[in-house]
Amino acid sequence: MSTNEKIYTGKTKDVYALDNGNILLVFKDDVTGEDGVIDPGANTVIGQVEGKGRKSLAMTDYFFKRLHAAAVPTHFVAADLDKGTMEVRRAEPLGKDVKGAGGFEFICRTRPWGSFLRRYRNYISDAERGLDYLVEITIKDDERGDPLINDDAILALGLLSAEHLAQAKELTRQVCRIVEADLRGKGLVLIDMKIEIGLVDGQVVVIDEVSADAMRVMDQSGQVLDHAVLCQQLIG
Amino acid sequence: MSTNEKIYTGKTKDVYALDNGNILLVFKDDVTGEDGVIDPGANTVIGQVEGKGRKSLAMTDYFFKRLHAAAVPTHFVAADLDKGTMEVRRAEPLGKDVKGAGGFEFICRTRPWGSFLRRYRNYISDAERGLDYLVEITIKDDERGDPLINDDAILALGLLSAEHLAQAKELTRQVCRIVEADLRGKGLVLIDMKIEIGLVDGQVVVIDEVSADAMRVMDQSGQVLDHAVLCQQLIG
Repeated sequence: MSTNEKIYTGKTKDVYALDNGNILLVFKDDVTGEDGVIDPGANTVIGQVEGKGRKSLAMTDYFFKRLHAAAVPTHFVAADLDKGTMEVRRAEPLGKDVKGAGGFEFICRTRPWGSFLRRYRNYISDAERGLDYLVEITIKDDERGDPLINDDAILALGLLSAEHLAQAKELTRQVCRIVEADLRGKGLVLIDMKIEIGLVDGQVVVIDEVSADAMRVMDQSGQVLDHAVLCQQLIG
Repeated sequence: MSTNEKIYTGKTKDVYALDNGNILLVFKDDVTGEDGVIDPGANTVIGQVEGKGRKSLAMTDYFFKRLHAAAVPTHFVAADLDKGTMEVRRAEPLGKDVKGAGGFEFICRTRPWGSFLRRYRNYISDAERGLDYLVEITIKDDERGDPLINDDAILALGLLSAEHLAQAKELTRQVCRIVEADLRGKGLVLIDMKIEIGLVDGQVVVIDEVSADAMRVMDQSGQVLDHAVLCQQLIG
């Protein structure tokens, strides 16, 4: 690995260029959080947890294989669970082809929760109400609090073509349905999740990771699962 | 007027029910702002400016007549510029039929400015770039900073039908084009504006006011006009 060029240092992953043109993701044990409390959705690294990187990788490997089985395109090539690395095809993350821009996150919601509930509190009388796989797109931008962007703004700014936007939203819903069904088989309920999407050879595919770090899940009683408990349920 | 029932006390307008089933809007001299500086977009009343209510009414009268001439539906019936009152048809403001909810504002942008620029700074290299009458919908909610809501969320929460949403967005663009053309005739350039929309007899119409309080305008040199200067240019 030492011969490969490091092209990006992320909060939870480092990224290397491989000689075969692919990319190697190295999952780190760094955890993000706020005020000393671990929160995968937070923007600041607050420490390390032994084995955390391998767990995220094992979950991503788990879900990417399920997506593959359902013919959902991803950038996945192979994972080495012992080394904590994943080889992927080189992708252009959507919303990241502008210098300095952080790229898009695609959120899919089965019911109102978290920031959605905070924003639209006055319009939500029933948190059990289904949201029919609603997709929201936010920008990765710590400084500005990951702002929401609507479809019209994405098109007006020329950040995506209408075709890629529609495909990315449909891909997000597909992934959400597959993950939801998988969790249901374990007696769990998916509340919401987020993925990143990129272009590989002009095709819209799921990139980065799909893991407990990027989903909110509850049990049948409505109790939201702690991150560690969810990891345990998913990969033992 | 004293015999009419006051049904709402707004920041800049009071609302009365008329015997004929219509509504009377009484434009007040209250101005909103922050830290002692007048800002029509702010959420707090900071004082009064003599004649301010009549000016807002005169501008609304001016623009509503232009919308009427262009066959754009509004709730306007008649204005009494001396009394500072406007009679309008009774409308259901969009996004306000939920108890406690503030309703929607429809923003139309011809170029990136203000909150749009703040949110998407990393994606905007050229502030002159046209936005092709981009529509954004926000929720009137002082406490939550008037959050943006995307089309999918409006539909998922059942706040508007797809038909009314599409009609409201098209109406917003129509109004923006008419106001832009009118200002262009005065040597001015519309940057962005916001309107409110309601249903009258099931039809989507422009409601509330269309005035300098709800638009950002610059001169040919690119200098944004002070609110008082814009009022002067519009109604003398």
